[in-house]
Amino acid sequence: MRIDKKHIEEHNEGLRAKHERAFNFIAEDIANVEEVISKLEKFQIAIPSWALGTGGTRFGRFSGKGEPGNLEQKIEDVGLLHALNQSSGAISLHIPWDIPQDAEKIKALAASYGLAFDAVNSNTFQDQAGQEHSYKFGSLHHVDPKVRKQAVDHNIEVINHGIALGSKALTVWLADGSSFPGQLNFREAFQNTLESLKEIYAHLPEDWKLFVEYKAFEPNFYSTTIADWGQSLLLANKLGDKAYTLVDLGHHLPNANIEQIVSLLLMEGKLAGFHFNDSKYADDDLTAGSVKPYQLFLIFNELVEGMDARGIDHATGLGWMIDASHNLKDPLVDLLQSVDAIKIAYAQALLVDRTALKAAQQSNDVVAAQEILQDAYRTDVRAIVAEARLRQGAALNPVALFNELNVRSKLIEERGSQSVATGL
Amino acid sequence: MRIDKKHIEEHNEGLRAKHERAFNFIAEDIANVEEVISKLEKFQIAIPSWALGTGGTRFGRFSGKGEPGNLEQKIEDVGLLHALNQSSGAISLHIPWDIPQDAEKIKALAASYGLAFDAVNSNTFQDQAGQEHSYKFGSLHHVDPKVRKQAVDHNIEVINHGIALGSKALTVWLADGSSFPGQLNFREAFQNTLESLKEIYAHLPEDWKLFVEYKAFEPNFYSTTIADWGQSLLLANKLGDKAYTLVDLGHHLPNANIEQIVSLLLMEGKLAGFHFNDSKYADDDLTAGSVKPYQLFLIFNELVEGMDARGIDHATGLGWMIDASHNLKDPLVDLLQSVDAIKIAYAQALLVDRTALKAAQQSNDVVAAQEILQDAYRTDVRAIVAEARLRQGAALNPVALFNELNVRSKLIEERGSQSVATGL
Amino acid sequence: MRIDKKHIEEHNEGLRAKHERAFNFIAEDIANVEEVISKLEKFQIAIPSWALGTGGTRFGRFSGKGEPGNLEQKIEDVGLLHALNQSSGAISLHIPWDIPQDAEKIKALAASYGLAFDAVNSNTFQDQAGQEHSYKFGSLHHVDPKVRKQAVDHNIEVINHGIALGSKALTVWLADGSSFPGQLNFREAFQNTLESLKEIYAHLPEDWKLFVEYKAFEPNFYSTTIADWGQSLLLANKLGDKAYTLVDLGHHLPNANIEQIVSLLLMEGKLAGFHFNDSKYADDDLTAGSVKPYQLFLIFNELVEGMDARGIDHATGLGWMIDASHNLKDPLVDLLQSVDAIKIAYAQALLVDRTALKAAQQSNDVVAAQEILQDAYRTDVRAIVAEARLRQGAALNPVALFNELNVRSKLIEERGSQSVATGL
Amino acid sequence: MRIDKKHIEEHNEGLRAKHERAFNFIAEDIANVEEVISKLEKFQIAIPSWALGTGGTRFGRFSGKGEPGNLEQKIEDVGLLHALNQSSGAISLHIPWDIPQDAEKIKALAASYGLAFDAVNSNTFQDQAGQEHSYKFGSLHHVDPKVRKQAVDHNIEVINHGIALGSKALTVWLADGSSFPGQLNFREAFQNTLESLKEIYAHLPEDWKLFVEYKAFEPNFYSTTIADWGQSLLLANKLGDKAYTLVDLGHHLPNANIEQIVSLLLMEGKLAGFHFNDSKYADDDLTAGSVKPYQLFLIFNELVEGMDARGIDHATGLGWMIDASHNLKDPLVDLLQSVDAIKIAYAQALLVDRTALKAAQQSNDVVAAQEILQDAYRTDVRAIVAEARLRQGAALNPVALFNELNVRSKLIEERGSQSVATGL
Repeated sequence: MRIDKKHIEEHNEGLRAKHERAFNFIAEDIANVEEVISKLEKFQIAIPSWALGTGGTRFGRFSGKGEPGNLEQKIEDVGLLHALNQSSGAISLHIPWDIPQDAEKIKALAASYGLAFDAVNSNTFQDQAGQEHSYKFGSLHHVDPKVRKQAVDHNIEVINHGIALGSKALTVWLADGSSFPGQLNFREAFQNTLESLKEIYAHLPEDWKLFVEYKAFEPNFYSTTIADWGQSLLLANKLGDKAYTLVDLGHHLPNANIEQIVSLLLMEGKLAGFHFNDSKYADDDLTAGSVKPYQLFLIFNELVEGMDARGIDHATGLGWMIDASHNLKDPLVDLLQSVDAIKIAYAQALLVDRTALKAAQQSNDVVAAQEILQDAYRTDVRAIVAEARLRQGAALNPVALFNELNVRSKLIEERGSQSVATGL
Repeated sequence: MRIDKKHIEEHNEGLRAKHERAFNFIAEDIANVEEVISKLEKFQIAIPSWALGTGGTRFGRFSGKGEPGNLEQKIEDVGLLHALNQSSGAISLHIPWDIPQDAEKIKALAASYGLAFDAVNSNTFQDQAGQEHSYKFGSLHHVDPKVRKQAVDHNIEVINHGIALGSKALTVWLADGSSFPGQLNFREAFQNTLESLKEIYAHLPEDWKLFVEYKAFEPNFYSTTIADWGQSLLLANKLGDKAYTLVDLGHHLPNANIEQIVSLLLMEGKLAGFHFNDSKYADDDLTAGSVKPYQLFLIFNELVEGMDARGIDHATGLGWMIDASHNLKDPLVDLLQSVDAIKIAYAQALLVDRTALKAAQQSNDVVAAQEILQDAYRTDVRAIVAEARLRQGAALNPVALFNELNVRSKLIEERGSQSVATGL
Repeated sequence: MRIDKKHIEEHNEGLRAKHERAFNFIAEDIANVEEVISKLEKFQIAIPSWALGTGGTRFGRFSGKGEPGNLEQKIEDVGLLHALNQSSGAISLHIPWDIPQDAEKIKALAASYGLAFDAVNSNTFQDQAGQEHSYKFGSLHHVDPKVRKQAVDHNIEVINHGIALGSKALTVWLADGSSFPGQLNFREAFQNTLESLKEIYAHLPEDWKLFVEYKAFEPNFYSTTIADWGQSLLLANKLGDKAYTLVDLGHHLPNANIEQIVSLLLMEGKLAGFHFNDSKYADDDLTAGSVKPYQLFLIFNELVEGMDARGIDHATGLGWMIDASHNLKDPLVDLLQSVDAIKIAYAQALLVDRTALKAAQQSNDVVAAQEILQDAYRTDVRAIVAEARLRQGAALNPVALFNELNVRSKLIEERGSQSVATGL
Repeated sequence: MRIDKKHIEEHNEGLRAKHERAFNFIAEDIANVEEVISKLEKFQIAIPSWALGTGGTRFGRFSGKGEPGNLEQKIEDVGLLHALNQSSGAISLHIPWDIPQDAEKIKALAASYGLAFDAVNSNTFQDQAGQEHSYKFGSLHHVDPKVRKQAVDHNIEVINHGIALGSKALTVWLADGSSFPGQLNFREAFQNTLESLKEIYAHLPEDWKLFVEYKAFEPNFYSTTIADWGQSLLLANKLGDKAYTLVDLGHHLPNANIEQIVSLLLMEGKLAGFHFNDSKYADDDLTAGSVKPYQLFLIFNELVEGMDARGIDHATGLGWMIDASHNLKDPLVDLLQSVDAIKIAYAQALLVDRTALKAAQQSNDVVAAQEILQDAYRTDVRAIVAEARLRQGAALNPVALFNELNVRSKLIEERGSQSVATGL
């Protein structure tokens, strides 16, 4: 299914008057509104191929219908999102769930939707049929060099797939860890991981990056071998200039100040980018901005400040991706909501009066500093984000249009109601 | 497979000298050692039928071999445990995973291993093939009365199975909750749950109990409809004398003082019993006592104090069950470790000098109170627990004997290496 | 110091054009804007007398200047706040820090600022000079009946002060708990607390309420005798119709779903009201809405829904108070920020389309439910809240006017720079 | 007051028979018992000068009697502890609370008790009378270079005091942070801290170490400028070979795996040492081992393994200190309990069968690895720790002897009941 431009135009026409009223109101208040819109237009958030089907928990999964059954359909799904919001112009593949049989064909298909290939992701947290060694006790950190070798080779294979598709980064997320005291020698697990990553790093093309993700716990419940930003940064520093630390919002201990971590990683030149989601308790993988929208804003506040301080291009300097699990909602709608929430937070962060904030900080005027951030955050920027979409030819209200066009029903018609996506 | 008494005797013979030395040493220090042993002998911890296979997480499962493929084999597994430790004399079934086709036969089989049937458990957190209504958005709390009715009927069916088997309690654990703000009207969800539970309660035989379990989060990630002990107790009080609150150690927010909850539930006469496991981060479902053994002791300290204060029989007054997930270890060995850790904690709690503790509390002698508890906890009670096993005809070291007898290898021979247990 | 009406008018005149533009824009979108404004006008948030000085931590305190040195000056401070925002029309006294020597005089003084007396607060968490028994090991829960008696008598004295001033509620917050395992018999501590509260309850005038506050931890670090809403509710139910559970936002374990607790307490008819503040880690006592503004909105969402469902008057049915610690900011400005954030959250909650939300919930349309809440929350309601202030004769921007009028400088002139408030 | 050797001997004589029975029993089971005892004898845990008085919270303090009123009395207190346990042979001073007027005299006094001077501690988290610049908004991270300079100069002064006393390390714990979003530029705060620390580092004598402590939160409640081990390590690496990361057990987010952090810091050669205490909720500063004794053991398990792997001397290679707050107990008794718990954990860690553990880890035998750790932990090592004390001339039961000798009463006689220690 492809969305006809004309449907988008009709949808926008119906909302135009209301939108213009709201946009004109807010635009008058914001000196640099055109610059904000321009940045919003360029800001693309990649969609992971594994987030297009219904997610589950260890207790079960309640599958939806019309899920994409193969890579081509996954690309079609992201194409639909991108047509609706013009902000999801990249797809992030997961190997072995999405091995492209014919890379050129796949590239052409993606290009037909305006999609590029974001970071590729390896999977050494599950055993695949026919796999020689099991990852039950880890992969890159494994005590057995044969298991490590198998996992390294898999990552190299993933890089190769990525090269064929035009990706420029490999994301390594490891489930490696332990569930019981005594199970692991932490130091040797770290060293094994480092050695394995070095071998993978050695295969990175010149213009590639290696994203080292960290996670506090789950699926291991006593220790994780790359558990926090400090461990990831230690690895990235030992690996070299192409290695960076990837931040997934759900991968922290309770109450962690993620925005500070972001600021420091930017300071060190080692922030890879983000896996966006939201959570209340653990790695809940909920829709971005659905539980802690102010935290999302505060993170973007640090991102904007830190990227500008280092001259990093907002759109291309870091990796932006959603990594959520859609257990209850239609995955495509959930993704539209996430992208929208992320752009709202980004827009609010762009409104922060940096000169005034700097002055408040320099004089320890805590009240003023708070008011400056709250002033940006309390501003209703939805019309600005919508205006950016409008100018890009996207829908003023992507979720509404998704419903109006009965997208899911049409996908079910095309794919059948039993189609289940590969992935978690 | 059944364990020959003679193997146990041989095993014990080999360890007898070492055991006697340790037991004699410790017995001399403990005035009431015989009473402690007697209580330990009577203390039985039920094994849930779903814990006999390898557990998993949403990221995957690394199955072991020789798992029980049907109810008969599950009973056989618990029979093996009970033969080894004489402390696992009951099995807790889960419907629909373990529907007994012929209750009398199943009862006779269990009896042949010395096993009784503990509380039966309903499942409305997953959809079964052919089920009319989905539990995707809950069961007993559902907005749709037809879904609630289906879930109520299922619970009544579970009670009926339990009656046939000689169970005396129904455990209701609900995944009902919400993952996003706004999804639920909390009040109506609670009221619906209450109404549903009332219908179930009405079907309870005179001598049955209803165990209402609570859980802070997962698989829903914003709210749980029975989220904490306060909500469970509210329901239990509204339901009546046969309703009780069940405590699962992993179902709390970080840092919760579980032992205080236990004490207050005992005070109110509303403690159902326990689902034992351990955890570091969330509902990690690890081996009991493997992460926070002192907490386990403190809980037993309250249990012993509170049961004695109310005249509750330790062995029969409350429900004792393990509820863990065996992702990495052989499930049977993991269960042996859990049972052992629980009995160690119980034995330590029995050693607490209650008169001295009372006196210390009455005089606010915090130092003395701490020393009294630590004195019991730091005592090496393993020989006492082992002595109780020895007198019951169980193995001095069940884990060692499990390995010596190559139990798992024999089960694989009997069941094949592809056998996978139903359950999580 | 009193604020001249004319200064407020001048201030408002200067901001009027900007305000009107914003208000007219938003008012056009909101059908019931007049009703919202009317509710906002009536909504008063009490100021605790102990929050008018600089707060501290166990590591120290960095006092500000011109703090109120006696009860009269504290009333003056709240009078200033109320003049600026017309939303802080009550003061909550703390005995023995604020014993009124001449109740009639104090009442008249308060009345001259338009202030009433909110709940009175007892203090049994500190020893006062000359006190016979120490509260080191607790007060109402103490093992020694003499200490309990002293604490009960103190609470009765507080009620008597409150009667003289026209208060209608007693708030009991206890530090009672334990810092080490073994220190307390939880059950007896609970029973002692209950008996003590019963004696206090017996002295409540007919039209008074008893607010039973709970807190998870601090200043005791192992257990708190009224630790959570379940324990408070248990006490309130055993005490009678005049006893209620008070919610302080900072008194929970990490990640607690406070809005659900609020909903259930309203369901049970047992919600006393709120102590507002915000926190990231523990009982941080930060400015309301400064860390988790969406949580504050979600709580008000439940409040509005639940109060309406039970026919509770928003303005008078529950107790609303700030309870924060002003360690870094000028306390008066901090309080203005808190009141503003609370009213913003309340206004947003009043905008929620309840009919649509109900429909979404009834059809398990999770996407729509989220969008409905986010639609209200993302609306910039500041002009509505300001309009309510304008109509009441308060300042359009209270914080700005506080600064323009150099309020603190004038207070320092009047009181001297060494004046330090009694309290924490 | 000094404890007469003869009192210790009498005390030991009274307990000797019971001790010998227990020691002989356990010694027979432990091949390397003499080596364990020898290590225990050498292991000294420093006592901080600020922990000798009653601690408090922001809600109040319930002072005890006979607290040390000056540095000489603090040394006397530590001397008493050391006489009782022969394991507290060092004192850690805090400037400006404990400025030695005559260093030589103070050294001689300490030497007369067998005490050395451990790391010296600076204090830039409070303002001292007459101080030019306030630390309200931080010290080494402050936006104002004059404040930073003042704080740097203070640290240099502390080093100079330490040199005079024979200390070999400076511990820097900063309260620097922020309580509200926007207050700080995280990056600049970090850079300012780094520059300040560089200046301090430049004044370190050749054989000194700089211990950089981290803390997650409190007394600031939004961010801490050295918040976690990653930030501390980043600083230590940028500073140079003499800079190390100090671990305080209470300074972590909930559920942090501290033992893994310890292992990795040892791997990097950057572990400074420890501030021991225990906690359930936050930085509760409770008696070591009183809440999570298994965690304490697991930390020592990593310490022993990691120190041996790097050839670090257990007794002298790292800094060992208690950092607790004695709110309810007599501080001296509390310290005796802490030291005892630490030595018990150390002894248990020394019992771990490292060869077997290594083998279990290499074969992913999770069951065996757990059993090996539990076997050591469940062993009652109290007689071994007591034997080490006995051989050193300390008391078999220091807490009991403290009580028998009425130490506190005598101190009250000497110092009066109003004496209050400087410090927190």
